[in-house]
Amino acid sequence: MPAGGRTGAVRLGGDRVEGRRAVRELLAAGRRRVRTVWIARGREPSPLLAEIEELASRGGVPVRLVDAERLQREAGTDAPQGVVAVAEPVIAADLDDLLRAPAALLVALDGVTDPRNLGAVVRSAETAGATGVVLERRRSPWLTPAAVKAAAGAVEYVPIALVPGIATALDRASRAGVWTVALDSGGSTTVDELSIADRPLVLVLGAEGRGLSRLVRERSDVVARIPLRGHLDSLNVSAAAAVACHQIARLRET
Amino acid sequence: MPAGGRTGAVRLGGDRVEGRRAVRELLAAGRRRVRTVWIARGREPSPLLAEIEELASRGGVPVRLVDAERLQREAGTDAPQGVVAVAEPVIAADLDDLLRAPAALLVALDGVTDPRNLGAVVRSAETAGATGVVLERRRSPWLTPAAVKAAAGAVEYVPIALVPGIATALDRASRAGVWTVALDSGGSTTVDELSIADRPLVLVLGAEGRGLSRLVRERSDVVARIPLRGHLDSLNVSAAAAVACHQIARLRET
Repeated sequence: MPAGGRTGAVRLGGDRVEGRRAVRELLAAGRRRVRTVWIARGREPSPLLAEIEELASRGGVPVRLVDAERLQREAGTDAPQGVVAVAEPVIAADLDDLLRAPAALLVALDGVTDPRNLGAVVRSAETAGATGVVLERRRSPWLTPAAVKAAAGAVEYVPIALVPGIATALDRASRAGVWTVALDSGGSTTVDELSIADRPLVLVLGAEGRGLSRLVRERSDVVARIPLRGHLDSLNVSAAAAVACHQIARLRET
Repeated sequence: MPAGGRTGAVRLGGDRVEGRRAVRELLAAGRRRVRTVWIARGREPSPLLAEIEELASRGGVPVRLVDAERLQREAGTDAPQGVVAVAEPVIAADLDDLLRAPAALLVALDGVTDPRNLGAVVRSAETAGATGVVLERRRSPWLTPAAVKAAAGAVEYVPIALVPGIATALDRASRAGVWTVALDSGGSTTVDELSIADRPLVLVLGAEGRGLSRLVRERSDVVARIPLRGHLDSLNVSAAAAVACHQIARLRET
């Protein structure tokens, strides 16, 4: 569970939360202690900003009005949308806990290094009901301000596990009875007709450009592709996560 | 058709193409004249860069090797990935032509102003076989370097029409016998069970935050939602385009 404050726990970052949706969810979820919310003075009224002020006030979180220029200077992203919150960091989940979830739908990232892509994948996965995200300890960027903003609040709800390597994590998944599905344009089946969609599973996505590592492809039970109906040979990784996870969720319901 | 050079034609920009996938598709599609390809000296060998050099050489396009710093200075995006091409601009398509396509699947953007989101939507739509994109003449950013890079080559294949307003374009669609579907979290049906998926249709997506305008919602034949299975109340606009367009393509095939 992404809750802050335990000693000895692995911190994923995420203590700087920028952007209206991200801050709204931070406050609404209430899973991490929020120290301060900074709001830029003189913004046009917006339902989201009003909701943020209301949630902060209800939760006893101090709100500070600051000049827009100062907020922009302090921000770690180029468009904080007039709001920055400082909170306890997100704590990593335990992979074994994630693998034990009865209807596990985990998304593992193999070599994705762009923070915005990472955040966008977590958001896409959350909207499809994914039960966790798995990142590599060394290669992935963790929850930078840009990643947290792109996740639009999803890091408050989706537990994230760090592992030494994705290939080894897939072995652990297999031993736990969880199926492993690698997403690759050369897949022998399509996600539209994924016969194991209703089993607990880990979906592995590779970085754009490099794609999946050989080991990951070899250790996956299934290599599946998203049918591409135009000329391009790939989707953006977060769009691929959205299409695949929503299709798996759809197949589980039928 | 996105082909350059006609006089009197409305130019959408797109003459500065950055990023490996975008440049590869620019050269592979061959629909616009390419003046020069600049490649940064001393990059690690990459299959995509090699393909770009090969395609340029085959097409008689001059390739100039420049210092990485100079390329970065000239670039309009923060990560040109070692390659920038200069080409004739993309020319706008005619909406009536797009509406006449027998299996039209058009994506219209109502108030999307972020160039990366615009480019990412065009890419997502292309991979699902969308036959065109419709943008507002005044409110949308057109094909800036950031938009073209995010589109990863999709602007070479998907024709893009500019219209004075999306609501009026929907009226034109209706008169042409094309169905209009607005995507909104408050939709009365879901895209999973869209009964008119196999008809020619325009799918309208709104900007994050503001959402769809009242007029657009009212003039659409159907307001449909993507089922959200987590806590968040929305997907990123390009992820939403990907999920909806791929689901419509899937429904058309069954």
